[in-house]
Amino acid sequence: MTKNTKTRLLMLSFSLMFIFATGCISDSDSELEDDTIFPRGNNVAGSPLEDSFTGDVWVEMLVTDDTYNSPSYNVIFSKGARTDWHSHPGGQLLFVTSGEGYYQEEGEPARLLKSGDVVEIPPDIVHWHGATADSTFEHVGVTTNPGAGAAEWFGDVTDEQYNNLVITTEQNSEKDNM
Amino acid sequence: MTKNTKTRLLMLSFSLMFIFATGCISDSDSELEDDTIFPRGNNVAGSPLEDSFTGDVWVEMLVTDDTYNSPSYNVIFSKGARTDWHSHPGGQLLFVTSGEGYYQEEGEPARLLKSGDVVEIPPDIVHWHGATADSTFEHVGVTTNPGAGAAEWFGDVTDEQYNNLVITTEQNSEKDNM
Repeated sequence: MTKNTKTRLLMLSFSLMFIFATGCISDSDSELEDDTIFPRGNNVAGSPLEDSFTGDVWVEMLVTDDTYNSPSYNVIFSKGARTDWHSHPGGQLLFVTSGEGYYQEEGEPARLLKSGDVVEIPPDIVHWHGATADSTFEHVGVTTNPGAGAAEWFGDVTDEQYNNLVITTEQNSEKDNM
Repeated sequence: MTKNTKTRLLMLSFSLMFIFATGCISDSDSELEDDTIFPRGNNVAGSPLEDSFTGDVWVEMLVTDDTYNSPSYNVIFSKGARTDWHSHPGGQLLFVTSGEGYYQEEGEPARLLKSGDVVEIPPDIVHWHGATADSTFEHVGVTTNPGAGAAEWFGDVTDEQYNNLVITTEQNSEKDNM
Protein backbone atom coordinates (compact mmCIF):
# COMPACT_ATOMS: atom_id res chain seq x y z
CA MET A 1 0.00 0.00 0.00
CA THR A 2 1.51 3.35 -0.99
CA LYS A 3 1.60 6.26 1.42
CA ASN A 4 -0.81 8.13 -0.84
CA THR A 5 -3.21 5.23 -0.73
CA LYS A 6 -2.97 5.13 3.05
CA THR A 7 -3.71 8.84 3.24
CA ARG A 8 -6.66 8.39 0.90
CA LEU A 9 -7.97 5.49 2.97
CA LEU A 10 -7.67 7.63 6.09
CA MET A 11 -9.63 10.38 4.38
CA LEU A 12 -12.16 7.83 3.15
CA SER A 13 -12.64 6.67 6.73
CA PHE A 14 -13.45 10.20 7.77
CA SER A 15 -15.76 10.65 4.79
CA LEU A 16 -17.61 7.44 5.62
CA MET A 17 -17.97 8.70 9.14
CA PHE A 18 -19.72 11.80 7.83
CA ILE A 19 -22.04 9.71 5.69
CA PHE A 20 -23.00 7.13 8.31
CA ALA A 21 -22.80 9.00 11.57
CA THR A 22 -25.97 10.62 12.80
CA GLY A 23 -26.27 13.66 15.00
CA CYS A 24 -26.97 12.11 18.40
CA ILE A 25 -29.12 14.25 20.63
CA SER A 26 -28.27 13.29 24.17
CA ASP A 27 -27.54 14.78 27.56
CA SER A 28 -23.87 14.67 26.67
CA ASP A 29 -24.53 16.80 23.60
CA SER A 30 -26.20 19.61 25.48
CA GLU A 31 -23.61 19.34 28.24
CA LEU A 32 -20.97 20.13 25.61
CA GLU A 33 -22.81 23.03 23.99
CA ASP A 34 -21.19 25.85 25.93
CA ASP A 35 -17.68 24.47 25.76
CA THR A 36 -17.51 24.11 22.02
CA ILE A 37 -15.41 26.60 20.06
CA PHE A 38 -14.93 24.72 16.80
CA PRO A 39 -17.78 22.77 15.18
CA ARG A 40 -18.69 19.67 17.19
CA GLY A 41 -19.12 17.38 14.20
CA ASN A 42 -20.44 13.88 14.64
CA ASN A 43 -20.30 11.31 17.40
CA VAL A 44 -17.86 8.60 16.36
CA ALA A 45 -20.36 5.97 17.53
CA GLY A 46 -21.31 3.87 14.52
CA SER A 47 -18.48 5.23 12.38
CA PRO A 48 -15.20 3.53 11.42
CA LEU A 49 -13.53 5.68 14.10
CA GLU A 50 -15.60 4.13 16.89
CA ASP A 51 -13.10 1.36 17.60
CA SER A 52 -10.32 3.88 18.25
CA PHE A 53 -12.04 5.54 21.22
CA THR A 54 -13.62 4.80 24.59
CA GLY A 55 -16.70 6.86 25.54
CA ASP A 56 -18.62 9.57 23.67
CA VAL A 57 -16.37 11.49 21.30
CA TRP A 58 -17.23 13.95 18.53
CA VAL A 59 -14.93 14.60 15.57
CA GLU A 60 -15.12 17.34 12.96
CA MET A 61 -12.60 17.50 10.13
CA LEU A 62 -11.38 21.10 9.79
CA VAL A 63 -8.73 20.77 7.06
CA THR A 64 -8.56 17.91 4.56
CA ASP A 65 -6.99 19.53 1.48
CA ASP A 66 -3.72 17.75 0.63
CA THR A 67 -2.19 21.12 -0.34
CA TYR A 68 -1.49 21.83 3.32
CA ASN A 69 -0.03 18.47 4.39
CA SER A 70 -1.74 19.14 7.72
CA PRO A 71 -4.95 17.15 8.20
CA SER A 72 -6.67 19.02 11.05
CA TYR A 73 -9.69 18.13 13.15
CA ASN A 74 -11.57 19.18 16.22
CA VAL A 75 -12.12 16.47 18.81
CA ILE A 76 -14.51 16.79 21.75
CA PHE A 77 -14.40 14.19 24.51
CA SER A 78 -17.21 13.74 27.03
CA LYS A 79 -16.15 13.15 30.66
CA GLY A 80 -13.88 10.11 30.90
CA ALA A 81 -13.75 9.60 27.11
CA ARG A 82 -10.37 9.00 25.48
CA THR A 83 -8.51 7.72 22.44
CA ASP A 84 -6.98 4.25 22.34
CA TRP A 85 -3.22 3.92 22.58
CA HIS A 86 -1.78 4.92 19.21
CA SER A 87 1.16 6.50 17.41
CA HIS A 88 1.68 8.72 14.37
CA PRO A 89 4.61 8.02 12.01
CA GLY A 90 4.92 11.77 11.30
CA GLY A 91 3.90 13.15 14.71
CA GLN A 92 0.91 15.18 15.86
CA LEU A 93 0.13 18.54 17.49
CA LEU A 94 -2.72 19.20 19.92
CA PHE A 95 -4.06 22.68 20.70
CA VAL A 96 -6.33 22.53 23.75
CA THR A 97 -9.25 24.95 23.55
CA SER A 98 -11.50 24.01 26.48
CA GLY A 99 -12.04 21.67 29.39
CA GLU A 100 -9.50 19.46 31.11
CA GLY A 101 -7.83 16.33 29.85
CA TYR A 102 -4.76 14.14 29.85
CA TYR A 103 -1.90 13.30 27.51
CA GLN A 104 0.14 10.24 28.35
CA GLU A 105 3.09 8.62 26.59
CA GLU A 106 3.62 4.91 27.19
CA GLY A 107 5.66 4.33 30.35
CA GLU A 108 5.39 7.97 31.45
CA PRO A 109 3.13 9.78 33.92
CA ALA A 110 0.09 11.55 32.42
CA ARG A 111 0.21 15.28 31.78
CA LEU A 112 -2.86 17.24 32.93
CA LEU A 113 -4.04 19.53 30.13
CA LYS A 114 -6.22 22.62 30.15
CA SER A 115 -7.33 25.32 27.76
CA GLY A 116 -4.31 26.99 26.13
CA ASP A 117 -1.97 24.01 26.43
CA VAL A 118 -0.13 22.70 23.40
CA VAL A 119 1.16 19.14 23.07
CA GLU A 120 3.90 18.10 20.65
CA ILE A 121 3.69 14.35 20.02
CA PRO A 122 6.88 13.05 18.39
CA PRO A 123 6.75 10.52 15.54
CA ASP A 124 6.15 6.89 16.57
CA ILE A 125 5.60 7.68 20.27
CA VAL A 126 2.79 5.49 21.63
CA HIS A 127 0.34 7.69 23.54
CA TRP A 128 -3.29 8.53 24.25
CA HIS A 129 -5.29 11.69 25.00
CA GLY A 130 -8.71 12.33 26.42
CA ALA A 131 -10.89 13.99 29.05
CA THR A 132 -10.55 13.84 32.81
CA ALA A 133 -13.30 12.00 34.69
CA ASP A 134 -14.84 15.32 35.76
CA SER A 135 -14.58 17.51 32.67
CA THR A 136 -15.28 17.52 28.97
CA PHE A 137 -12.21 18.24 26.87
CA GLU A 138 -11.75 19.84 23.44
CA HIS A 139 -8.68 20.10 21.26
CA VAL A 140 -7.71 20.85 17.69
CA GLY A 141 -5.38 18.14 16.41
CA VAL A 142 -3.00 18.45 13.47
CA THR A 143 -1.40 15.36 11.96
CA THR A 144 2.09 16.49 10.97
CA ASN A 145 4.10 15.00 8.10
CA PRO A 146 1.07 12.95 6.97
CA GLY A 147 3.09 11.50 4.10
CA ALA A 148 4.92 9.38 6.70
CA GLY A 149 1.81 7.19 6.94
CA ALA A 150 -1.40 6.58 8.86
CA ALA A 151 -1.70 6.32 12.65
CA GLU A 152 -1.14 2.90 14.22
CA TRP A 153 -3.52 1.73 16.94
CA PHE A 154 -2.69 -0.47 19.94
CA GLY A 155 -5.93 -1.06 21.84
CA ASP A 156 -7.98 0.50 24.63
CA VAL A 157 -6.75 2.60 27.49
CA THR A 158 -8.38 0.25 30.00
CA ASP A 159 -10.45 1.44 32.95
CA GLU A 160 -7.70 0.07 35.19
CA GLN A 161 -5.08 2.21 33.42
CA TYR A 162 -7.36 5.24 33.35
CA ASN A 163 -8.40 4.97 37.00
CA ASN A 164 -4.82 4.58 38.24
CA LEU A 165 -3.10 7.40 36.39
CA VAL A 166 -0.03 9.03 37.84
CA ILE A 167 -0.33 12.72 37.00
CA THR A 168 2.68 14.95 36.50
CA THR A 169 2.85 18.70 36.50
CA GLU A 170 5.92 18.41 34.26
CA GLN A 171 5.19 18.96 30.61
CA ASN A 172 6.19 16.22 28.20
CA SER A 173 6.81 18.14 25.03
CA GLU A 174 10.08 19.59 23.81
CA LYS A 175 8.39 22.93 23.34
CA ASP A 176 8.30 23.29 27.09
CA ASN A 177 12.07 23.30 27.26
CA MET A 178 12.18 26.49 25.21
CA MET B 1 -37.42 66.79 45.54
CA THR B 2 -35.44 69.99 46.09
CA LYS B 3 -33.12 71.42 43.48
CA ASN B 4 -30.26 70.68 45.86
CA THR B 5 -31.24 67.05 46.09
CA LYS B 6 -31.60 66.91 42.31
CA THR B 7 -28.16 68.46 41.95
CA ARG B 8 -26.67 65.99 44.41
CA LEU B 9 -28.30 63.05 42.58
CA LEU B 10 -27.05 64.42 39.28
CA MET B 11 -23.53 64.73 40.70
CA LEU B 12 -23.78 61.19 42.09
CA SER B 13 -24.87 59.92 38.67
CA PHE B 14 -21.91 61.59 37.03
CA SER B 15 -19.58 60.22 39.71
CA LEU B 16 -20.89 56.70 39.23
CA MET B 17 -20.64 57.09 35.47
CA PHE B 18 -17.07 58.31 35.86
CA ILE B 19 -16.15 55.39 38.16
CA PHE B 20 -17.83 52.93 35.82
CA ALA B 21 -16.23 54.46 32.76
CA THR B 22 -12.81 54.48 34.41
CA GLY B 23 -13.25 50.82 35.22
CA CYS B 24 -13.99 50.12 31.58
CA ILE B 25 -11.12 52.15 30.21
CA SER B 26 -8.10 49.97 30.39
CA ASP B 27 -4.91 49.54 28.54
CA SER B 28 -4.98 47.10 25.65
CA ASP B 29 -3.30 44.40 27.72
CA SER B 30 -6.02 44.07 30.33
CA GLU B 31 -8.72 44.51 27.69
CA LEU B 32 -7.43 41.31 26.10
CA GLU B 33 -7.09 39.31 29.30
CA ASP B 34 -10.49 37.59 29.20
CA ASP B 35 -10.36 36.74 25.52
CA THR B 36 -7.07 34.92 25.59
CA ILE B 37 -7.08 31.13 25.32
CA PHE B 38 -3.49 30.51 24.30
CA PRO B 39 -0.60 32.43 25.88
CA ARG B 40 -0.57 36.08 24.83
CA GLY B 41 3.17 36.33 24.32
CA ASN B 42 4.81 39.64 23.54
CA ASN B 43 3.71 42.80 21.82
CA VAL B 44 5.44 42.92 18.44
CA ALA B 45 6.28 46.59 19.07
CA GLY B 46 10.05 46.89 19.13
CA SER B 47 10.59 43.42 17.67
CA PRO B 48 11.59 42.51 14.10
CA LEU B 49 7.90 41.61 13.53
CA GLU B 50 6.76 45.18 14.16
CA ASP B 51 7.06 46.25 10.52
CA SER B 52 4.70 43.49 9.38
CA PHE B 53 1.69 44.73 11.39
CA THR B 54 -0.48 47.79 11.96
CA GLY B 55 -1.68 48.36 15.54
CA ASP B 56 -1.07 46.48 18.77
CA VAL B 57 -0.46 42.78 18.14
CA TRP B 58 0.82 40.05 20.45
CA VAL B 59 2.54 36.91 19.16
CA GLU B 60 3.45 33.74 21.05
CA MET B 61 5.26 30.91 19.30
CA LEU B 62 3.53 27.64 20.19
CA VAL B 63 5.49 25.11 18.10
CA THR B 64 9.01 25.72 16.78
CA ASP B 65 10.50 22.21 16.63
CA ASP B 66 11.47 21.39 13.02
CA THR B 67 10.33 17.77 13.57
CA TYR B 68 6.74 18.85 12.92
CA ASN B 69 7.22 21.00 9.81
CA SER B 70 4.39 23.12 11.23
CA PRO B 71 5.59 26.33 12.87
CA SER B 72 2.60 27.38 14.99
CA TYR B 73 1.83 30.59 16.84
CA ASN B 74 -0.92 32.39 18.65
CA VAL B 75 -1.67 35.91 17.41
CA ILE B 76 -3.84 38.41 19.27
CA PHE B 77 -4.91 41.58 17.51
CA SER B 78 -6.27 44.60 19.36
CA LYS B 79 -9.25 46.39 17.79
CA GLY B 80 -8.39 47.51 14.25
CA ALA B 81 -4.96 45.82 14.28
CA ARG B 82 -3.94 43.72 11.28
CA THR B 83 -1.11 42.11 9.38
CA ASP B 84 0.42 43.70 6.29
CA TRP B 85 -0.35 42.20 2.91
CA HIS B 86 1.72 39.03 2.59
CA SER B 87 1.89 35.53 1.12
CA HIS B 88 3.28 32.15 2.18
CA PRO B 89 5.05 29.95 -0.41
CA GLY B 90 3.74 26.81 1.36
CA GLY B 91 0.36 28.13 2.57
CA GLN B 92 -1.04 28.80 6.03
CA LEU B 93 -3.94 27.70 8.25
CA LEU B 94 -5.77 29.93 10.74
CA PHE B 95 -7.90 28.56 13.60
CA VAL B 96 -9.95 31.40 15.11
CA THR B 97 -10.42 31.06 18.88
CA SER B 98 -11.97 34.35 19.95
CA GLY B 99 -13.17 37.77 18.88
CA GLU B 100 -14.04 38.94 15.39
CA GLY B 101 -11.76 39.61 12.49
CA TYR B 102 -11.26 39.64 8.75
CA TYR B 103 -9.43 37.60 6.15
CA GLN B 104 -9.01 39.13 2.73
CA GLU B 105 -7.30 37.89 -0.41
CA GLU B 106 -6.06 40.51 -2.87
CA GLY B 107 -8.85 41.55 -5.25
CA GLU B 108 -11.54 39.72 -3.25
CA PRO B 109 -14.09 40.87 -0.66
CA ALA B 110 -13.11 40.36 2.99
CA ARG B 111 -14.44 37.37 4.92
CA LEU B 112 -15.79 38.14 8.41
CA LEU B 113 -14.31 35.67 10.92
CA LYS B 114 -15.43 34.61 14.36
CA SER B 115 -14.54 32.04 16.97
CA GLY B 116 -14.58 28.53 15.48
CA ASP B 117 -13.81 29.59 11.90
CA VAL B 118 -10.94 28.01 9.99
CA VAL B 119 -9.14 29.68 7.08
CA GLU B 120 -7.12 27.79 4.48
CA ILE B 121 -4.69 30.17 2.77
CA PRO B 122 -3.28 28.66 -0.42
CA PRO B 123 0.40 29.00 -1.32
CA ASP B 124 1.44 32.36 -2.82
CA ILE B 125 -1.96 34.00 -2.34
CA VAL B 126 -1.50 37.63 -1.26
CA HIS B 127 -3.72 38.30 1.76
CA TRP B 128 -4.04 39.87 5.20
CA HIS B 129 -5.85 39.06 8.44
CA GLY B 130 -6.69 41.06 11.53
CA ALA B 131 -9.31 42.36 13.93
CA THR B 132 -12.51 44.25 13.16
CA ALA B 133 -12.64 47.87 14.32
CA ASP B 134 -14.89 46.88 17.24
CA SER B 135 -13.40 43.63 18.51
CA THR B 136 -10.14 42.04 19.50
CA PHE B 137 -9.31 38.91 17.51
CA GLU B 138 -7.31 35.80 18.33
CA HIS B 139 -6.18 32.96 16.11
CA VAL B 140 -3.73 30.10 16.08
CA GLY B 141 -1.74 30.15 12.85
CA VAL B 142 0.11 27.23 11.30
CA THR B 143 2.61 27.79 8.51
CA THR B 144 2.23 24.76 6.25
CA ASN B 145 5.01 23.31 4.08
CA PRO B 146 7.56 25.64 5.70
CA GLY B 147 10.31 24.15 3.55
CA ALA B 148 8.81 26.08 0.61
CA GLY B 149 10.28 29.27 2.06
CA ALA B 150 9.59 32.30 4.22
CA ALA B 151 6.58 34.61 3.94
CA GLU B 152 6.82 37.53 1.52
CA TRP B 153 5.56 40.93 2.62
CA PHE B 154 3.94 43.61 0.46
CA GLY B 155 3.28 46.60 2.71
CA ASP B 156 0.54 48.00 4.94
CA VAL B 157 -3.18 47.42 4.68
CA THR B 158 -3.82 51.16 4.54
CA ASP B 159 -6.50 52.89 6.59
CA GLU B 160 -8.25 53.65 3.29
CA GLN B 161 -8.32 49.94 2.39
CA TYR B 162 -9.33 48.92 5.92
CA ASN B 163 -12.07 51.52 6.25
CA ASN B 164 -13.63 50.66 2.89
CA LEU B 165 -13.79 46.89 3.09
CA VAL B 166 -16.41 44.98 1.19
CA ILE B 167 -17.48 42.13 3.46
CA THR B 168 -18.75 38.84 2.14
CA THR B 169 -20.65 36.15 3.94
CA GLU B 170 -19.21 33.67 1.44
CA GLN B 171 -16.26 31.74 2.76
CA ASN B 172 -13.07 31.88 0.73
CA SER B 173 -11.44 28.60 1.64
CA GLU B 174 -11.73 25.30 -0.18
CA LYS B 175 -12.66 23.64 3.10
CA ASP B 176 -16.01 25.34 2.86
CA ASN B 177 -16.85 23.49 -0.31
CA MET B 178 -16.78 20.17 1.53
